[in-house]
Amino acid sequence: MVETLSKNKIKWIKSLHLKKHRDAEGVFIVEGDKMVSELIEHWSHYIEFICTSDQSIQFNGMVYQTDDKTIKEIGSLTTPNKILAVVKKPNVPVGETKLVLALDGIQDPGNFGTIVRTSDWFGVDLIVCSKGTVDMLNPKVVQSSMGSLFRVPIIYTDLPSFLSNSNLPIYGALLEGENVYSKSLPENAIIVMGNEGAGISAGIQKLIQHKIHIPRFGGAESLNVAIATGILLSEFRSSIKKL
Amino acid sequence: MVETLSKNKIKWIKSLHLKKHRDAEGVFIVEGDKMVSELIEHWSHYIEFICTSDQSIQFNGMVYQTDDKTIKEIGSLTTPNKILAVVKKPNVPVGETKLVLALDGIQDPGNFGTIVRTSDWFGVDLIVCSKGTVDMLNPKVVQSSMGSLFRVPIIYTDLPSFLSNSNLPIYGALLEGENVYSKSLPENAIIVMGNEGAGISAGIQKLIQHKIHIPRFGGAESLNVAIATGILLSEFRSSIKKL
Repeated sequence: MVETLSKNKIKWIKSLHLKKHRDAEGVFIVEGDKMVSELIEHWSHYIEFICTSDQSIQFNGMVYQTDDKTIKEIGSLTTPNKILAVVKKPNVPVGETKLVLALDGIQDPGNFGTIVRTSDWFGVDLIVCSKGTVDMLNPKVVQSSMGSLFRVPIIYTDLPSFLSNSNLPIYGALLEGENVYSKSLPENAIIVMGNEGAGISAGIQKLIQHKIHIPRFGGAESLNVAIATGILLSEFRSSIKKL
Repeated sequence: MVETLSKNKIKWIKSLHLKKHRDAEGVFIVEGDKMVSELIEHWSHYIEFICTSDQSIQFNGMVYQTDDKTIKEIGSLTTPNKILAVVKKPNVPVGETKLVLALDGIQDPGNFGTIVRTSDWFGVDLIVCSKGTVDMLNPKVVQSSMGSLFRVPIIYTDLPSFLSNSNLPIYGALLEGENVYSKSLPENAIIVMGNEGAGISAGIQKLIQHKIHIPRFGGAESLNVAIATGILLSEFRSSIKKL
Protein backbone atom coordinates (compact mmCIF):
# COMPACT_ATOMS: atom_id res chain seq x y z
CA MET A 1 0.00 0.00 0.00
CA VAL A 2 1.41 3.39 -0.96
CA GLU A 3 0.22 6.65 0.61
CA THR A 4 1.53 10.17 1.08
CA LEU A 5 2.79 11.33 4.48
CA SER A 6 0.41 13.50 6.50
CA LYS A 7 1.60 16.34 8.73
CA ASN A 8 0.47 14.39 11.80
CA LYS A 9 2.48 11.34 10.77
CA ILE A 10 5.56 13.53 10.21
CA LYS A 11 5.13 15.00 13.67
CA TRP A 12 4.73 11.54 15.22
CA ILE A 13 7.86 10.18 13.49
CA LYS A 14 9.88 13.19 14.64
CA SER A 15 8.72 12.57 18.22
CA LEU A 16 10.55 9.21 18.07
CA HIS A 17 13.86 11.03 18.30
CA LEU A 18 13.17 11.20 22.04
CA LYS A 19 13.55 8.10 24.21
CA LYS A 20 10.31 8.72 26.15
CA HIS A 21 8.27 8.61 22.94
CA ARG A 22 10.12 5.50 21.66
CA ASP A 23 9.42 3.82 25.00
CA ALA A 24 5.75 4.85 24.96
CA GLU A 25 5.19 3.69 21.37
CA GLY A 26 7.50 0.64 21.41
CA VAL A 27 8.98 1.63 18.04
CA PHE A 28 12.11 3.31 16.72
CA ILE A 29 13.65 4.66 13.51
CA VAL A 30 16.01 2.83 11.14
CA GLU A 31 17.61 4.89 8.36
CA GLY A 32 19.55 4.44 5.14
CA ASP A 33 19.45 2.15 2.17
CA LYS A 34 21.76 -0.57 3.53
CA MET A 35 20.06 -0.86 6.93
CA VAL A 36 16.48 -0.73 5.60
CA SER A 37 17.30 -3.27 2.86
CA GLU A 38 18.68 -5.62 5.53
CA LEU A 39 15.48 -5.09 7.55
CA ILE A 40 13.23 -5.84 4.57
CA GLU A 41 15.24 -8.96 3.81
CA HIS A 42 15.57 -10.42 7.32
CA TRP A 43 13.19 -8.72 9.74
CA SER A 44 10.30 -7.44 7.64
CA HIS A 45 7.80 -8.53 10.33
CA TYR A 46 9.27 -5.85 12.61
CA ILE A 47 8.57 -3.03 10.13
CA GLU A 48 5.54 -0.84 10.89
CA PHE A 49 5.99 1.25 7.74
CA ILE A 50 8.56 2.73 5.40
CA CYS A 51 8.95 6.35 4.27
CA THR A 52 10.90 6.87 1.08
CA SER A 53 11.66 9.29 -1.73
CA ASP A 54 12.80 6.37 -3.90
CA GLN A 55 9.93 5.19 -6.12
CA SER A 56 11.57 1.85 -6.89
CA ILE A 57 11.38 0.43 -3.34
CA GLN A 58 9.85 -3.05 -3.19
CA PHE A 59 8.17 -3.74 0.14
CA ASN A 60 5.10 -5.82 0.83
CA GLY A 61 3.65 -3.49 3.48
CA MET A 62 2.86 0.13 4.21
CA VAL A 63 4.98 2.60 2.22
CA TYR A 64 4.71 6.37 2.48
CA GLN A 65 6.04 8.11 -0.61
CA THR A 66 7.65 11.48 0.09
CA ASP A 67 10.56 13.75 -0.98
CA ASP A 68 14.25 13.97 0.03
CA LYS A 69 13.62 17.09 2.11
CA THR A 70 11.00 15.36 4.27
CA ILE A 71 13.20 12.28 4.76
CA LYS A 72 15.94 14.59 6.01
CA GLU A 73 13.46 16.43 8.27
CA ILE A 74 12.12 13.28 9.95
CA GLY A 75 15.47 11.45 10.11
CA SER A 76 18.73 12.01 11.93
CA LEU A 77 21.31 11.38 9.20
CA THR A 78 23.39 14.28 7.92
CA THR A 79 24.40 12.37 4.78
CA PRO A 80 21.91 12.22 1.87
CA ASN A 81 19.33 9.51 2.39
CA LYS A 82 16.15 8.37 0.65
CA ILE A 83 14.66 5.83 3.04
CA LEU A 84 13.62 5.41 6.66
CA ALA A 85 11.61 2.74 8.46
CA VAL A 86 9.61 2.85 11.68
CA VAL A 87 10.26 -0.48 13.36
CA LYS A 88 8.97 -2.39 16.39
CA LYS A 89 11.41 -2.73 19.26
CA PRO A 90 13.32 -6.00 18.84
CA ASN A 91 12.51 -8.69 21.34
CA VAL A 92 15.36 -11.16 21.04
CA PRO A 93 14.73 -14.22 23.22
CA VAL A 94 17.33 -14.87 25.93
CA GLY A 95 18.64 -18.43 25.65
CA GLU A 96 21.36 -20.10 27.67
CA THR A 97 23.69 -17.37 28.97
CA LYS A 98 27.29 -18.49 28.89
CA LEU A 99 29.14 -15.38 27.77
CA VAL A 100 27.53 -12.18 29.08
CA LEU A 101 28.64 -8.59 28.58
CA ALA A 102 27.65 -6.11 31.31
CA LEU A 103 27.79 -2.39 30.47
CA ASP A 104 28.02 0.03 33.37
CA GLY A 105 27.00 3.45 32.07
CA ILE A 106 28.31 3.51 28.48
CA GLN A 107 27.23 6.96 27.21
CA ASP A 108 28.34 7.34 23.62
CA PRO A 109 25.78 5.88 21.18
CA GLY A 110 28.47 5.14 18.56
CA ASN A 111 30.45 3.14 21.14
CA PHE A 112 27.34 1.30 22.29
CA GLY A 113 26.28 0.41 18.73
CA THR A 114 29.77 -0.83 17.89
CA ILE A 115 29.80 -2.91 21.09
CA VAL A 116 26.49 -4.53 20.09
CA ARG A 117 27.85 -5.33 16.61
CA THR A 118 31.09 -6.74 18.07
CA SER A 119 29.14 -8.80 20.64
CA ASP A 120 27.10 -10.23 17.79
CA TRP A 121 30.32 -11.21 15.94
CA PHE A 122 31.68 -12.98 19.01
CA GLY A 123 28.36 -14.68 19.85
CA VAL A 124 27.73 -12.96 23.20
CA ASP A 125 24.58 -14.52 24.67
CA LEU A 126 23.30 -11.44 26.52
CA ILE A 127 24.16 -7.76 26.99
CA VAL A 128 23.09 -6.45 30.40
CA CYS A 129 23.06 -2.65 30.77
CA SER A 130 22.93 -0.52 33.89
CA LYS A 131 20.00 1.89 33.88
CA GLY A 132 22.39 4.79 33.15
CA THR A 133 23.54 3.25 29.86
CA VAL A 134 22.58 5.00 26.61
CA ASP A 135 19.27 3.88 25.04
CA MET A 136 19.68 0.92 22.66
CA LEU A 137 17.16 2.54 20.27
CA ASN A 138 18.98 5.87 20.02
CA PRO A 139 19.33 6.60 16.25
CA LYS A 140 23.15 6.59 16.37
CA VAL A 141 23.16 3.24 18.21
CA VAL A 142 20.87 1.82 15.55
CA GLN A 143 23.14 3.01 12.71
CA SER A 144 26.39 1.72 14.22
CA SER A 145 24.99 -1.61 15.43
CA MET A 146 24.26 -2.60 11.79
CA GLY A 147 21.37 -4.99 12.39
CA SER A 148 22.92 -6.73 15.40
CA LEU A 149 20.17 -5.23 17.60
CA PHE A 150 17.90 -7.89 16.12
CA ARG A 151 20.22 -10.76 17.02
CA VAL A 152 21.70 -10.02 20.46
CA PRO A 153 19.40 -9.95 23.53
CA ILE A 154 19.85 -6.66 25.41
CA ILE A 155 18.30 -5.88 28.79
CA TYR A 156 18.38 -2.82 31.07
CA THR A 157 18.30 -3.69 34.73
CA ASP A 158 19.73 -3.00 38.16
CA LEU A 159 23.27 -4.15 37.43
CA PRO A 160 24.44 -4.76 41.04
CA SER A 161 21.54 -7.12 41.74
CA PHE A 162 21.98 -8.87 38.36
CA LEU A 163 25.64 -9.51 39.17
CA SER A 164 24.93 -10.55 42.75
CA ASN A 165 22.40 -13.12 41.57
CA SER A 166 24.52 -14.67 38.84
CA ASN A 167 26.57 -17.86 39.16
CA LEU A 168 28.99 -16.95 36.39
CA PRO A 169 32.49 -15.70 37.27
CA ILE A 170 32.60 -11.90 37.02
CA TYR A 171 35.48 -10.27 35.13
CA GLY A 172 35.96 -6.51 34.88
CA ALA A 173 38.24 -4.26 32.84
CA LEU A 174 40.19 -2.15 35.33
CA LEU A 175 43.52 -0.33 35.02
CA GLU A 176 44.89 -2.06 38.12
CA GLY A 177 43.78 -5.48 36.83
CA GLU A 178 46.01 -8.40 35.88
CA ASN A 179 47.49 -8.65 32.40
CA VAL A 180 44.74 -10.41 30.42
CA TYR A 181 47.32 -12.05 28.13
CA SER A 182 48.75 -14.05 31.02
CA LYS A 183 45.37 -15.22 32.38
CA SER A 184 43.66 -18.43 31.51
CA LEU A 185 40.07 -17.41 30.74
CA PRO A 186 36.92 -19.53 31.16
CA GLU A 187 34.40 -20.19 28.40
CA ASN A 188 31.50 -18.98 30.56
CA ALA A 189 31.77 -15.55 32.18
CA ILE A 190 30.40 -12.08 32.67
CA ILE A 191 32.66 -9.28 31.41
CA VAL A 192 31.95 -5.84 32.89
CA MET A 193 32.92 -2.69 30.97
CA GLY A 194 32.66 0.79 32.49
CA ASN A 195 31.75 4.30 31.43
CA GLU A 196 33.98 6.14 28.90
CA GLY A 197 35.33 8.65 31.42
CA ALA A 198 34.64 7.27 34.89
CA GLY A 199 35.17 3.55 34.28
CA ILE A 200 33.33 0.97 36.39
CA SER A 201 31.39 2.56 39.28
CA ALA A 202 32.53 1.86 42.86
CA GLY A 203 29.46 -0.23 43.74
CA ILE A 204 30.00 -2.55 40.79
CA GLN A 205 33.77 -2.79 41.32
CA LYS A 206 33.13 -4.55 44.64
CA LEU A 207 31.31 -7.33 42.79
CA ILE A 208 34.13 -8.02 40.34
CA GLN A 209 35.97 -11.24 41.12
CA HIS A 210 38.67 -11.04 38.44
CA LYS A 211 40.17 -7.65 37.54
CA ILE A 212 41.85 -7.73 34.14
CA HIS A 213 43.53 -5.17 31.91
CA ILE A 214 44.96 -4.93 28.41
CA PRO A 215 48.67 -4.10 28.66
CA ARG A 216 49.92 -0.85 27.19
CA PHE A 217 52.98 -0.72 24.92
CA GLY A 218 52.90 2.95 23.88
CA GLY A 219 51.82 6.40 24.97
CA ALA A 220 48.00 6.64 24.81
CA GLU A 221 46.27 7.36 28.12
CA SER A 222 43.48 4.90 27.50
CA LEU A 223 41.76 2.72 24.93
CA ASN A 224 38.31 3.54 23.54
CA VAL A 225 35.78 1.36 25.41
CA ALA A 226 34.44 -0.32 22.26
CA ILE A 227 38.01 -1.25 21.26
CA ALA A 228 38.74 -2.61 24.76
CA THR A 229 35.49 -4.62 24.65
CA GLY A 230 36.42 -6.08 21.26
CA ILE A 231 39.88 -7.08 22.48
CA LEU A 232 38.55 -8.71 25.67
CA LEU A 233 35.81 -10.62 23.83
CA SER A 234 38.47 -11.80 21.39
CA GLU A 235 40.69 -12.92 24.31
CA PHE A 236 37.84 -14.93 25.87
CA ARG A 237 37.04 -16.55 22.51
CA SER A 238 40.65 -17.28 21.59
CA SER A 239 41.12 -19.01 24.95
CA ILE A 240 38.50 -21.54 23.82
CA LYS A 241 40.05 -21.94 20.38
CA LYS A 242 43.50 -22.61 21.81
CA LEU A 243 42.36 -25.44 24.09
CA MET B 1 48.85 38.31 24.71
CA VAL B 2 45.07 38.68 24.55
CA GLU B 3 43.25 40.16 21.56
CA THR B 4 39.77 40.08 20.05
CA LEU B 5 39.06 38.02 16.95
CA SER B 6 38.85 39.94 13.67
CA LYS B 7 36.45 39.01 10.87
CA ASN B 8 39.40 38.07 8.70
CA LYS B 9 40.79 35.74 11.35
CA ILE B 10 37.36 34.11 11.74
CA LYS B 11 37.20 33.56 7.99
CA TRP B 12 40.71 32.10 7.94
CA ILE B 13 39.97 29.67 10.81
CA LYS B 14 36.77 28.53 9.11
CA SER B 15 38.75 27.86 5.92
CA LEU B 16 40.71 25.22 7.86
CA HIS B 17 37.68 22.93 7.79
CA LEU B 18 38.82 22.07 4.25
CA LYS B 19 41.82 19.80 3.70
CA LYS B 20 43.28 21.97 0.93
CA HIS B 21 43.52 24.96 3.26
CA ARG B 22 44.97 22.85 6.12
CA ASP B 23 47.56 21.52 3.67
CA ALA B 24 48.39 24.98 2.35
CA GLU B 25 48.72 26.52 5.82
CA GLY B 26 50.25 23.50 7.62
CA VAL B 27 47.86 23.95 10.55
CA PHE B 28 44.63 22.39 11.84
CA ILE B 29 41.96 22.88 14.51
CA VAL B 30 41.82 21.20 17.94
CA GLU B 31 38.62 21.68 19.96
CA GLY B 32 37.29 21.17 23.45
CA ASP B 33 38.53 21.68 26.97
CA LYS B 34 40.10 18.23 27.45
CA MET B 35 41.99 18.21 24.16
CA VAL B 36 43.21 21.81 24.35
CA SER B 37 44.31 21.37 28.00
CA GLU B 38 46.32 18.32 26.95
CA LEU B 39 47.87 20.38 24.15
CA ILE B 40 48.80 23.24 26.48
CA GLU B 41 50.33 20.78 28.93
CA HIS B 42 52.30 18.57 26.54
CA TRP B 43 52.57 20.19 23.12
CA SER B 44 52.30 23.92 23.67
CA HIS B 45 55.07 24.59 21.14
CA TYR B 46 52.69 23.32 18.42
CA ILE B 47 50.00 25.91 19.28
CA GLU B 48 49.75 28.92 16.95
CA PHE B 49 46.96 30.53 18.99
CA ILE B 50 43.91 29.81 21.11
CA CYS B 51 40.36 31.17 20.72
CA THR B 52 38.20 31.00 23.81
CA SER B 53 35.09 32.33 25.51
CA ASP B 54 36.51 31.24 28.88
CA GLN B 55 38.27 34.17 30.56
CA SER B 56 40.14 31.95 33.01
CA ILE B 57 42.33 30.19 30.41
CA GLN B 58 46.04 30.22 31.30
CA PHE B 59 48.25 30.06 28.23
CA ASN B 60 51.61 31.67 27.69
CA GLY B 61 50.99 32.61 24.05
CA MET B 62 48.46 34.23 21.72
CA VAL B 63 44.87 34.08 23.03
CA TYR B 64 41.87 35.51 21.20
CA GLN B 65 38.99 36.22 23.55
CA THR B 66 35.56 35.73 21.99
CA ASP B 67 32.03 34.48 22.75
CA ASP B 68 30.36 31.02 22.73
CA LYS B 69 28.56 31.77 19.48
CA THR B 70 31.78 32.53 17.61
CA ILE B 71 33.48 29.41 18.99
CA LYS B 72 30.59 27.37 17.65
CA GLU B 73 30.75 29.18 14.30
CA ILE B 74 34.47 28.56 13.75
CA GLY B 75 34.50 25.04 15.22
CA SER B 76 32.97 21.72 14.21
CA LEU B 77 31.61 20.42 17.53
CA THR B 78 27.87 20.17 18.02
CA THR B 79 28.21 19.94 21.81
CA PRO B 80 28.75 23.18 23.79
CA ASN B 81 32.39 24.22 23.77
CA LYS B 82 34.40 27.23 24.92
CA ILE B 83 37.85 26.65 23.48
CA LEU B 84 39.60 25.95 20.21
CA ALA B 85 43.26 26.00 19.20
CA VAL B 86 44.92 26.41 15.82
CA VAL B 87 47.86 24.05 15.85
CA LYS B 88 50.84 23.25 13.64
CA LYS B 89 50.74 19.90 11.85
CA PRO B 90 52.51 17.33 14.06
CA ASN B 91 55.80 16.09 12.70
CA VAL B 92 56.50 12.95 14.71
CA PRO B 93 59.96 11.56 13.85
CA VAL B 94 59.99 8.04 12.40
CA GLY B 95 62.32 5.82 14.42
CA GLU B 96 62.99 2.13 13.99
CA THR B 97 59.93 0.56 12.35
CA LYS B 98 59.20 -2.85 13.79
CA LEU B 99 55.40 -2.88 13.99
CA VAL B 100 53.78 -0.96 11.14
CA LEU B 101 50.09 -0.46 10.43
CA ALA B 102 49.13 0.13 6.77
CA LEU B 103 45.70 1.62 6.06
CA ASP B 104 44.27 1.09 2.59
CA GLY B 105 41.52 3.66 2.10
CA ILE B 106 39.94 4.01 5.56
CA GLN B 107 37.20 6.62 5.01
CA ASP B 108 35.44 7.26 8.31
CA PRO B 109 37.24 9.91 10.39
CA GLY B 110 35.97 8.41 13.67
CA ASN B 111 37.40 5.01 12.70
CA PHE B 112 40.70 6.57 11.65
CA GLY B 113 41.04 8.59 14.88
CA THR B 114 40.26 5.54 17.00
CA ILE B 115 42.82 3.51 15.02
CA VAL B 116 45.48 6.16 15.72
CA ARG B 117 44.65 6.12 19.45
CA THR B 118 44.72 2.31 19.54
CA SER B 119 48.02 2.24 17.61
CA ASP B 120 49.45 4.62 20.19
CA TRP B 121 48.33 2.30 23.03
CA PHE B 122 49.98 -0.70 21.38
CA GLY B 123 53.16 1.19 20.47
CA VAL B 124 52.84 0.98 16.69
CA ASP B 125 56.01 2.53 15.21
CA LEU B 126 54.46 3.93 12.03
CA ILE B 127 51.06 4.25 10.35
CA VAL B 128 51.30 4.26 6.55
CA CYS B 129 48.19 5.43 4.70
CA SER B 130 47.24 5.01 1.06
CA LYS B 131 46.54 8.32 -0.64
CA GLY B 132 42.80 7.59 -0.57
CA THR B 133 42.71 7.40 3.24
CA VAL B 134 40.86 10.15 5.14
CA ASP B 135 42.96 13.20 6.14
CA MET B 136 44.67 12.79 9.52
CA LEU B 137 43.87 16.44 10.33
CA ASN B 138 40.10 16.14 9.68
CA PRO B 139 38.37 17.62 12.79
CA LYS B 140 36.65 14.31 13.66
CA VAL B 141 39.94 12.42 13.40
CA VAL B 142 41.53 14.95 15.72
CA GLN B 143 38.77 14.56 18.32
CA SER B 144 38.72 10.76 18.34
CA SER B 145 42.50 10.32 18.26
CA MET B 146 42.77 12.06 21.66
CA GLY B 147 46.31 13.45 21.37
CA SER B 148 47.81 10.33 19.82
CA LEU B 149 48.37 12.29 16.58
CA PHE B 150 51.30 13.91 18.38
CA ARG B 151 52.91 10.58 19.32
CA VAL B 152 52.45 8.20 16.37
CA PRO B 153 54.24 8.94 13.07
CA ILE B 154 51.71 8.93 10.20
CA ILE B 155 52.63 9.16 6.52
CA TYR B 156 50.57 9.21 3.32
CA THR B 157 52.27 7.51 0.41
CA ASP B 158 51.90 5.16 -2.51
CA LEU B 159 51.05 2.05 -0.50
CA PRO B 160 51.93 -0.60 -3.14
CA SER B 161 55.45 0.77 -3.54
CA PHE B 162 55.90 1.15 0.24
CA LEU B 163 54.95 -2.50 0.72
CA SER B 164 57.06 -3.68 -2.22
CA ASN B 165 60.14 -1.95 -0.80
CA SER B 166 59.76 -3.18 2.79
CA ASN B 167 61.60 -6.13 4.30
CA LEU B 168 59.01 -6.77 7.00
CA PRO B 169 56.56 -9.68 6.61
CA ILE B 170 53.21 -8.35 5.32
CA TYR B 171 50.00 -9.48 7.05
CA GLY B 172 46.53 -8.50 5.90
CA ALA B 173 43.04 -8.84 7.38
CA LEU B 174 40.97 -10.77 4.83
CA LEU B 175 37.81 -12.84 5.21
CA GLU B 176 39.43 -15.84 3.51
CA GLY B 177 42.51 -15.55 5.74
CA GLU B 178 43.73 -18.07 8.31
CA ASN B 179 42.39 -18.00 11.87
CA VAL B 180 44.64 -15.49 13.61
CA TYR B 181 44.26 -17.32 16.94
CA SER B 182 46.04 -20.39 15.56
CA LYS B 183 48.92 -18.47 13.97
CA SER B 184 52.23 -17.76 15.60
CA LEU B 185 52.83 -14.07 14.95
CA PRO B 186 56.19 -12.28 14.63
CA GLU B 187 57.22 -9.25 16.68
CA ASN B 188 58.08 -7.24 13.57
CA ALA B 189 55.46 -6.96 10.84
CA ILE B 190 53.28 -4.78 8.66
CA ILE B 191 49.53 -5.26 9.23
CA VAL B 192 47.31 -4.07 6.35
CA MET B 193 43.70 -3.03 7.04
CA GLY B 194 41.25 -2.23 4.23
CA ASN B 195 38.42 0.18 3.53
CA GLU B 196 35.19 -0.09 5.57
CA GLY B 197 33.08 -1.36 2.68
CA ALA B 198 35.45 -2.65 0.01
CA GLY B 199 38.21 -4.13 2.18
CA ILE B 200 41.77 -4.29 0.90
CA SER B 201 42.07 -3.27 -2.77
CA ALA B 202 43.03 -5.91 -5.37
CA GLY B 203 46.46 -4.39 -6.08
CA ILE B 204 47.42 -4.44 -2.40
CA GLN B 205 46.02 -7.94 -1.82
CA LYS B 206 48.64 -9.33 -4.21
CA LEU B 207 51.38 -8.00 -1.91
CA ILE B 208 50.04 -9.65 1.23
CA GLN B 209 52.13 -12.64 2.30
CA HIS B 210 50.02 -13.79 5.26
CA LYS B 211 46.23 -13.54 5.07
CA ILE B 212 44.64 -13.62 8.52
CA HIS B 213 41.13 -13.27 9.89
CA ILE B 214 39.39 -12.99 13.24
CA PRO B 215 37.03 -15.97 13.64
CA ARG B 216 33.30 -15.31 13.93
CA PHE B 217 31.21 -16.94 16.65
CA GLY B 218 27.86 -15.21 16.08
CA GLY B 219 25.70 -13.55 13.46
CA ALA B 220 27.23 -10.16 12.54
CA GLU B 221 28.25 -9.78 8.91
CA SER B 222 31.48 -8.01 9.74
CA LEU B 223 33.50 -6.25 12.42
CA ASN B 224 34.03 -2.49 12.45
CA VAL B 225 37.52 -1.82 11.02
CA ALA B 226 38.77 -0.01 14.14
CA ILE B 227 37.66 -2.96 16.30
CA ALA B 228 39.36 -5.44 13.94
CA THR B 229 42.54 -3.33 14.02
CA GLY B 230 42.50 -3.27 17.83
CA ILE B 231 42.05 -7.04 18.03
CA LEU B 232 44.85 -7.75 15.54
CA LEU B 233 47.28 -5.34 17.23
CA SER B 234 46.43 -7.03 20.52
CA GLU B 235 47.10 -10.46 18.97
CA PHE B 236 50.52 -9.35 17.70
CA ARG B 237 51.41 -7.88 21.09
CA SER B 238 50.12 -10.84 23.10
CA SER B 239 52.22 -13.18 20.96
CA ILE B 240 55.31 -11.39 22.30
CA LYS B 241 54.04 -11.49 25.90
CA LYS B 242 53.37 -15.20 25.73
CA LEU B 243 56.89 -16.10 24.57
